Amino acid sequence: MQTTIKGLLQKNGSKIVFLVMDGLGGLPYKGIIERSAGGTEGPFAGPDGRFIGKTELEAAHAPNLDKLAVLSACGLHIPVGPGITPGSGPGHLGLFGYDPLKWEIGRGVLEAVGLGLEVKKTDIAIRCNYATIENNVITDRRAGRPSTAKMLKVTERLQKEIPEIDGVKFIYGPGMEHRFAVIMRFPEALSPEAAMVNDSDPQMEGKAPLPLIPKHPKAERTAAITRKFIGRVEELLKDSHPENYILVRGFSTHPRLPSFLEAYGLRALAIASYPMYRGLARLIGMEAPDFEGSFEEEIEYMKANWNDYDFFFIHFKKTDSYGEDGNFAEKVKKIEEADKALPCILALKPEVLVITGDHSTPAVMKGHSWHPVPAMLHAPYVLGEVTEGFSERQCLKGELGIIPSVALMPLALANAGRLKKFGS
Amino acid sequence: MQTTIKGLLQKNGSKIVFLVMDGLGGLPYKGIIERSAGGTEGPFAGPDGRFIGKTELEAAHAPNLDKLAVLSACGLHIPVGPGITPGSGPGHLGLFGYDPLKWEIGRGVLEAVGLGLEVKKTDIAIRCNYATIENNVITDRRAGRPSTAKMLKVTERLQKEIPEIDGVKFIYGPGMEHRFAVIMRFPEALSPEAAMVNDSDPQMEGKAPLPLIPKHPKAERTAAITRKFIGRVEELLKDSHPENYILVRGFSTHPRLPSFLEAYGLRALAIASYPMYRGLARLIGMEAPDFEGSFEEEIEYMKANWNDYDFFFIHFKKTDSYGEDGNFAEKVKKIEEADKALPCILALKPEVLVITGDHSTPAVMKGHSWHPVPAMLHAPYVLGEVTEGFSERQCLKGELGIIPSVALMPLALANAGRLKKFGS
Repeated sequence: MQTTIKGLLQKNGSKIVFLVMDGLGGLPYKGIIERSAGGTEGPFAGPDGRFIGKTELEAAHAPNLDKLAVLSACGLHIPVGPGITPGSGPGHLGLFGYDPLKWEIGRGVLEAVGLGLEVKKTDIAIRCNYATIENNVITDRRAGRPSTAKMLKVTERLQKEIPEIDGVKFIYGPGMEHRFAVIMRFPEALSPEAAMVNDSDPQMEGKAPLPLIPKHPKAERTAAITRKFIGRVEELLKDSHPENYILVRGFSTHPRLPSFLEAYGLRALAIASYPMYRGLARLIGMEAPDFEGSFEEEIEYMKANWNDYDFFFIHFKKTDSYGEDGNFAEKVKKIEEADKALPCILALKPEVLVITGDHSTPAVMKGHSWHPVPAMLHAPYVLGEVTEGFSERQCLKGELGIIPSVALMPLALANAGRLKKFGS
Repeated sequence: MQTTIKGLLQKNGSKIVFLVMDGLGGLPYKGIIERSAGGTEGPFAGPDGRFIGKTELEAAHAPNLDKLAVLSACGLHIPVGPGITPGSGPGHLGLFGYDPLKWEIGRGVLEAVGLGLEVKKTDIAIRCNYATIENNVITDRRAGRPSTAKMLKVTERLQKEIPEIDGVKFIYGPGMEHRFAVIMRFPEALSPEAAMVNDSDPQMEGKAPLPLIPKHPKAERTAAITRKFIGRVEELLKDSHPENYILVRGFSTHPRLPSFLEAYGLRALAIASYPMYRGLARLIGMEAPDFEGSFEEEIEYMKANWNDYDFFFIHFKKTDSYGEDGNFAEKVKKIEEADKALPCILALKPEVLVITGDHSTPAVMKGHSWHPVPAMLHAPYVLGEVTEGFSERQCLKGELGIIPSVALMPLALANAGRLKKFGS
């Protein structure tokens, strides 16, 4: 479908805004307990009786969202496929029109991006664990699960001591506990074969680390440099304990997704306070400055950059965070916060405003879920007056129907007047 | 899907009617202005206050359509894909069950068909422009945009003077202004490779016409004969000005779509007053006599031929024409006209009657659009009593859901009792 779309693109001065309220979709509070065939009671927070039977969106007092939904095309979208719970990566890829089943992002790249590192076409990204080794046997694959703070210092030391090997730059992304990511930045662009190196992690204690074997001639240099890297780290940490070794996994190159500019002719700006979302946005060629601030400040930032871009991805994180915590009441509050800021977005008069999530995170499930995500597309040429507000149940009645997430971008482009007619 | 369907076909005496109201789908009148975030006012016709907030179908007084919709399976269909605005060719292909993304029709064939020429499997169709050439440089690619009437005479002269070259017949289709189409009818059926010849149009003035180069051995004869053709035309027009040359583009053969009879076992009759729709129908093996007449006369013609066919495609053009003009009130009237004639169709008691459009042409957009098209399928075995009338918003509630256009033919066949069980 992206190929067809590309052939139909035309330019105009229109602006498209995607407001992504992370993990927006939800499920009814408590209702799940009373209705559950198994009758199991979930231990989730929020004692307020007025929520019973309502989803987070239904429970929220969100007059701006509700009013806008009436004037918009509404529906629900499925990020990956029926029953499939997406991670944030596939969720956002789908929203932006990249089929998450087609465009798999390597584990190393995903980890690096998630830690806020930028991955370029010259890079190989790997996931690393601090581990404990004795007589060439891994005795602890996680080096005793050390504290994040302690390991941050170790990783900073690696960055200082091993910034480069044989002309390849090493860029470190400290992670949680024993985890970190490494970018090996080569002088030239790499093909995917350069990452065809196995994990060194034997996946169980009591074994030697696996030797790194290139599976393709183009991966020989990658394997050789990584061996040197592991040796240098081992030398550097030889007096440390328990973190005296590293295991490497998930060698991967830039996924070479077509950029937003290539795919849609759109200059795109991503405004997100969390590094992972910026990293994902950069993988598809969006500008994604290291922005930190409140949602209101995100909108201000969009306003300040309004003339320089065609597409704005503005990310609202907290709906997902409280969903993951199982905190129904706080997720409701966050929806209400976003609702209050909505007029500031509308004041910019984008031709197309899409409001949705990258996936559902029902507070009652304390995690991402497979449920279709409510969405509204506000633009001049919609039917409208089909739904009475913005919620999962209202969106079910909507004119968009239940669609794959990848359908949203073509619809946004069409509504922005950016697609020519197909055939005569 | 067509392969699966083909394996399930069974014959019976049932009749299927597709009433295609061209560009049927619409959008609310004026409401669009009040709702638009951008606030831009569209310059469309129709001052009637009672239309505000209603689509063309909602504004029409169409009691027969509304009553029938209650007794039918209703829904909306998407011709090509989300956000994609179809031309009439892809729109009709989809309706008839041919995936428009799979079955692309060559530009030359589409032009020829649009001008009412029949394209056979022995043919190569090309688009031609009258142009001005001086010292082998194209000085005007459109020969000064001459009048259609003037060029009609020139094209008639070509038909008379160059009816054949080396055993290949030349059939001319006069077009608008400088445009015309040519069918080269060879003595034998051609494979698609025979059309692998580049355009001679250099796409800009001040350049020489491009030499015709066959891209496949099977295209050598095509290129040679076309070179002779261009030479003959140049000789004939050498004293004319500014139209003293022709540029050729879009070499293409019959798209070799499976015929309606092959695909569905249906003897099909197309009744359409516009040449383009007859041409499209002929491409899929429908009989399409050169019929001209009112909608009532189209229905009379169908009645007169009722016993000789299994499938009837009856085309109602004016809904699209007034939509394209932005004339909301007249599009409403045309729907009301069709509504009045509906009982004459019902009196024939077809087993299946599908009423829909090939795409949407909202008057407020003055053109084709990507919006799903309302449809009703009237047949004995439907749920019914799901919708309260025939409109975009009513169809959203319908039992068909929002489906790709290519789903309509299998549904029609099933409802006509023409499909066996799949598996045991």
